[in-house]
Amino acid sequence: MRTFRIAMVQMNPTVGDLDGNVRRITTWLREAKKAKADLVAFPELAITGYPPEDLLLKPRFVADNRRALQEIVRHCRGLAAVVGYVSQSDGIDPKPARSSVVSAGAHELYNAAAVIVDKKLITTYCKWYLPNYGVFDESRYFQPGRRLPLIRLRGTVVGVNICEDVWLPEGPTGFQAAAGAEIIVNINASPFHLGKSRAREQMLATRARENGVVLTYTNAVGGQDDLVFDGNSVILDHQGEVIARGKAFEVDMIVADLNMEAVARARRTGRKKILPRRVASAVEVCAASLPAVPKNLVRAVPDVATVLDPLEEVYRALTLGVRDYVRKNGFTRAVIGLSGGVDSALTAVLAVDALGAENVWGLFMPSPYTSQDSHDDVAELGTRLAISVRTIPITTLFDTYRHALAETFEGRAPDTTEENLQARIRGNLLMAFSNKFGHLVLTTGNKSEMSVGYATLYGDMAGGFAVIKDVPKTMVYDLARLRNLRGTTPVIPKRTLDRPPTAELRPNQKDEDSLPPYEILDPILQAYVEEDRSLEEIVEAGYDRATVARVMTMVDGSEYKRRQAPIGIKITHRALGKDRRMPITNGYRNS
Amino acid sequence: MRTFRIAMVQMNPTVGDLDGNVRRITTWLREAKKAKADLVAFPELAITGYPPEDLLLKPRFVADNRRALQEIVRHCRGLAAVVGYVSQSDGIDPKPARSSVVSAGAHELYNAAAVIVDKKLITTYCKWYLPNYGVFDESRYFQPGRRLPLIRLRGTVVGVNICEDVWLPEGPTGFQAAAGAEIIVNINASPFHLGKSRAREQMLATRARENGVVLTYTNAVGGQDDLVFDGNSVILDHQGEVIARGKAFEVDMIVADLNMEAVARARRTGRKKILPRRVASAVEVCAASLPAVPKNLVRAVPDVATVLDPLEEVYRALTLGVRDYVRKNGFTRAVIGLSGGVDSALTAVLAVDALGAENVWGLFMPSPYTSQDSHDDVAELGTRLAISVRTIPITTLFDTYRHALAETFEGRAPDTTEENLQARIRGNLLMAFSNKFGHLVLTTGNKSEMSVGYATLYGDMAGGFAVIKDVPKTMVYDLARLRNLRGTTPVIPKRTLDRPPTAELRPNQKDEDSLPPYEILDPILQAYVEEDRSLEEIVEAGYDRATVARVMTMVDGSEYKRRQAPIGIKITHRALGKDRRMPITNGYRNS
Repeated sequence: MRTFRIAMVQMNPTVGDLDGNVRRITTWLREAKKAKADLVAFPELAITGYPPEDLLLKPRFVADNRRALQEIVRHCRGLAAVVGYVSQSDGIDPKPARSSVVSAGAHELYNAAAVIVDKKLITTYCKWYLPNYGVFDESRYFQPGRRLPLIRLRGTVVGVNICEDVWLPEGPTGFQAAAGAEIIVNINASPFHLGKSRAREQMLATRARENGVVLTYTNAVGGQDDLVFDGNSVILDHQGEVIARGKAFEVDMIVADLNMEAVARARRTGRKKILPRRVASAVEVCAASLPAVPKNLVRAVPDVATVLDPLEEVYRALTLGVRDYVRKNGFTRAVIGLSGGVDSALTAVLAVDALGAENVWGLFMPSPYTSQDSHDDVAELGTRLAISVRTIPITTLFDTYRHALAETFEGRAPDTTEENLQARIRGNLLMAFSNKFGHLVLTTGNKSEMSVGYATLYGDMAGGFAVIKDVPKTMVYDLARLRNLRGTTPVIPKRTLDRPPTAELRPNQKDEDSLPPYEILDPILQAYVEEDRSLEEIVEAGYDRATVARVMTMVDGSEYKRRQAPIGIKITHRALGKDRRMPITNGYRNS
Repeated sequence: MRTFRIAMVQMNPTVGDLDGNVRRITTWLREAKKAKADLVAFPELAITGYPPEDLLLKPRFVADNRRALQEIVRHCRGLAAVVGYVSQSDGIDPKPARSSVVSAGAHELYNAAAVIVDKKLITTYCKWYLPNYGVFDESRYFQPGRRLPLIRLRGTVVGVNICEDVWLPEGPTGFQAAAGAEIIVNINASPFHLGKSRAREQMLATRARENGVVLTYTNAVGGQDDLVFDGNSVILDHQGEVIARGKAFEVDMIVADLNMEAVARARRTGRKKILPRRVASAVEVCAASLPAVPKNLVRAVPDVATVLDPLEEVYRALTLGVRDYVRKNGFTRAVIGLSGGVDSALTAVLAVDALGAENVWGLFMPSPYTSQDSHDDVAELGTRLAISVRTIPITTLFDTYRHALAETFEGRAPDTTEENLQARIRGNLLMAFSNKFGHLVLTTGNKSEMSVGYATLYGDMAGGFAVIKDVPKTMVYDLARLRNLRGTTPVIPKRTLDRPPTAELRPNQKDEDSLPPYEILDPILQAYVEEDRSLEEIVEAGYDRATVARVMTMVDGSEYKRRQAPIGIKITHRALGKDRRMPITNGYRNS
């Protein structure tokens, strides 16, 4: 029986760390060889990490990436490999210049997949469809490819393409299949958002079925700034059935024997795809051979990892996002301002799950407005998580500020100025702790607050990484409850989940004094911020006109705060980062 | 003699303010009619302002922009107008739906120029070349146009195109000329950077000459977040000679009579341009007629505004940038932390020039490390600028923080933690002042500091707008000296310019303790940050290897600070904003 053994490496590169990424790739190459894979696939831009952003404008970086590829080529003895890198031509790259000085200036770049067979770079596929929406800026850097190379290897025809290319019904996948490809090796750096992995797998099943090809989808895994790559690599047979699935949010290698006779039989009997004339000239067939390797007799029986519940996916994305941001930026420990509220509690739990309790510190900074409940809940949380919690009261500092400003503020009533002062004192103490001991400050603001600007710039917004910045408040509760189901004792005190949210910046303050209830606010925000709905549309969906208008005004008026917020983990369709690029100076009043 | 009277309106739209922009446009239409213009040109995206960014993803916003165009069309009686707006088709837009509910979803958008003749929208040109580099993201929003409409009006053939379209030798301008256009109406929203206006005018002269057309270049003017549009609209005759130039950095209307017979004569005798076959089908000629208007007999003799000195241009850009950011965001007053140093002094002077002395406040916040020179220089600057300066010492606050942290920091020596604390106390006081009185806080950091991270996040970086964020320290001095030449007395005290720069956060601190001298640092930064040069290249240009490596490490290591910095005015080729999109998590070590 003609089989083809494929390995997919769901690896976690670091953007810019070319040496490290080469090391990771060559280590996995050894594993793939041990597994007797005919071909091993690595993610999109595995050599540079994704997204390399403006590093791509440095000619030296591009040259270094090409040198890294040469290094990888030398390690591919006895197998084929598909490796994502940056090419400078829509074909086989010329060897990089030996000179250490690379001249600056215009250069054409391609988001490419090198096809290496037995230590030879035999061809390069350059991505056709460059996403330039949402968080993606690929047209800023890359030219679209125009070639369609196919590789004939051990009697099987393989087509390679990249990420977005597989999403289009009329695209490289269909063309390659029509030109004879039996396996499509699609490599990806596809960031997570809620619901995406399911939709993606459905699309891949459709694509495999409609083209009668085996579709192998290799994704990266890991956190990179605001993005988390979720893994979930998958192989679908020519009928669209999942025959292997990598783990979610973990590094993994998936090995599977593909029954190519079944594919060939189906293609002989099935309806023949016709290659459109306009793309026929783009096809190039490269025949390559591998030395005969005594196959191990045992068939590679691939794992099919379980699909996670969507909320569990979010929890894992947040954990991995924190872990990788901290680790990849050279930190080991984090500090969090604990208030007794659910946001800081969830952030602390996520940090503990990501970094270990020994690496997480809490700072509790009570004022006269801090309730006894908050004191108790912080202490309880600290105990349950087994983290160190340090208490630094801010009352004297607050009084000293008020004294220093008394003359300047004479005759003015207290207002949000005094509330912000308290938040900013806490921000300063957290940053001082961070500066002195080297802990990364994790901020605790959720998406609902960040959207309406219910947060103090340089106060509770002060820190290096905003863990739950893209999590709406109602989902913060869901995640907290989900996490409380793990183990024998809930880690977050029940009262933290039950009592009404409050900033405790003045006596008896409640979030609902300033904001609609979160059950109302969150769907309005989703419609306005994530779905670009107009006032009329949101009102027609059943919300009070005055409330919707007020929320929209708050969102529009707090763009300047969001622009100075720390980055945080994207988990929704549209996060408050490079996903959403709104002007600060903005006269539009959506009516 | 066949003449054609053209008016160019160098207007200052506000992004998103559709009603306001329509009002501005209709007001200028009346002026153009009074001036008996045959055709009046408005800037690129005059209706929405530029760049509208993700407002374009709101279907309602696009619909509102099209309604705004209809409103403008009704005001164009008796003349032709070219108006920048967002089109939803590459042709004449269908009338917008009457329903107030516009469905969300995929929509194709074009960066378009409406051609209106006597109250009729006769055609729309859609921009061919969409910039998607530097600060530009046009591929995120727009599809490229494919049509080449020409308008025959009063015996003259006019071609319309947009911004980037005129920069390419093989582009719409040449094609339109070859198809018969005698005048090219090119509309723009072209942001300022140092040296750009000169280079642009040279390019335009070449383009006019090589195509034998009159080239009218209409630019916007004004500040929009980090961008300043510089005006400098210009008309070049078919020999590339400037026959009219609008003012720099000011709203202006330029009216000129174009001698079309001279153009026609030159075209009859000159070498005939040939329209490439592949674009011939894109040409559409629209004949339109205007009612006969009794021309005033006086010829419109256009002004040719003086070209400014480059440093003067920067000064004007900064002033306009501050004024428009403050005004367009609903502020009238600004507050600045004055230290006695040159950065805060220049920022204060710019603010006074932009907003008037009565609208600018200084806050002086001395510590025990503040020298008597600083005390004196701040007082002197305040007097010379006639601004209110308030003094709030920070010593007690600093002591209170140290006391509050004493137990936590026990056994640890003072370090940058304590320096940052002082800066952050000042940041808090400035923000409290702003919260209480409604002044916008202007920050005072320069590009050299911002590049290497020699600044305190939430400290001196706290504020709404970073005026000189893109000005290297050496240029800060140049601008201060330039401004001191105005009037009878220099506004910035001589000692501020003469004494060595210091942050005064510890005894006898000097910038040069931590940084190379600015005369060395600034060219290294220009090479690394603005020109993407490698270590080797910078060393080959004559800089010390260890110094260059240290500077590069500082730049790479402070990306997280820049990401939380307020926006500021772009004046160089590459500013530290959306011009430069570097990952924070970045393992690349440029060697």
